[in-house]
Amino acid sequence: MTGRPSEYKVVLVVRGELRLTAGKAAVQVAHGAVMLYQLAERRHGAALEAWLRGGQKKIAVVAPTLADLEELQRQARARGIPTVFVEDAGLTEVPPGTRTVLGLGPAPEAEVDRVSGSLPLL
Amino acid sequence: MTGRPSEYKVVLVVRGELRLTAGKAAVQVAHGAVMLYQLAERRHGAALEAWLRGGQKKIAVVAPTLADLEELQRQARARGIPTVFVEDAGLTEVPPGTRTVLGLGPAPEAEVDRVSGSLPLL
Repeated sequence: MTGRPSEYKVVLVVRGELRLTAGKAAVQVAHGAVMLYQLAERRHGAALEAWLRGGQKKIAVVAPTLADLEELQRQARARGIPTVFVEDAGLTEVPPGTRTVLGLGPAPEAEVDRVSGSLPLL
Repeated sequence: MTGRPSEYKVVLVVRGELRLTAGKAAVQVAHGAVMLYQLAERRHGAALEAWLRGGQKKIAVVAPTLADLEELQRQARARGIPTVFVEDAGLTEVPPGTRTVLGLGPAPEAEVDRVSGSLPLL
């Protein structure tokens, strides 16, 4: 391949207002990555293959509020990017069912970046 | 089920001496979780099913050095617990091929805890 016209990426967007500890955030991000993997296996096989071939590139970023995550999900869906919401079991730090992370992808990097490219890294 | 005789867990052990940022650690932990998922799909189907039924419980902990991670891996293997090592692509923070995270499981919680139960949470 010349250049990387179809590099695929997963983005995990952490809900900043929850102020999760590093360990809690890591676990929620991991949960989102596994959920996206499961979803892609069922419905986005070609994207999953492309993502795995590229070394399963992923990044973790932050958006302030749940409303921000919901808006990002709307934008991603409008572009056909797979999305998942991680809901915490609520054993620690936050109440049960709290939405902690929005997962996006795997999808072409240029597409995902149009949705989440301006967010700061976790 | 009465009680939780067969609750399954995944543990991600972060290599503390690397002093990764929260975001970098989260991504490495997520990478380990996906690698364990892939390994379990190929070779530990019953454990994977048990783990998913239980809500894919996972925690992130810290061990100081690579030698500690390697010793934990030996102990886990001796108990038949699946293990993976995450090697960073090295684009940021650490050199390419650096081992960043040891993943353990999914395996019965009591078994995994005998290996990693004394490690502090990330």
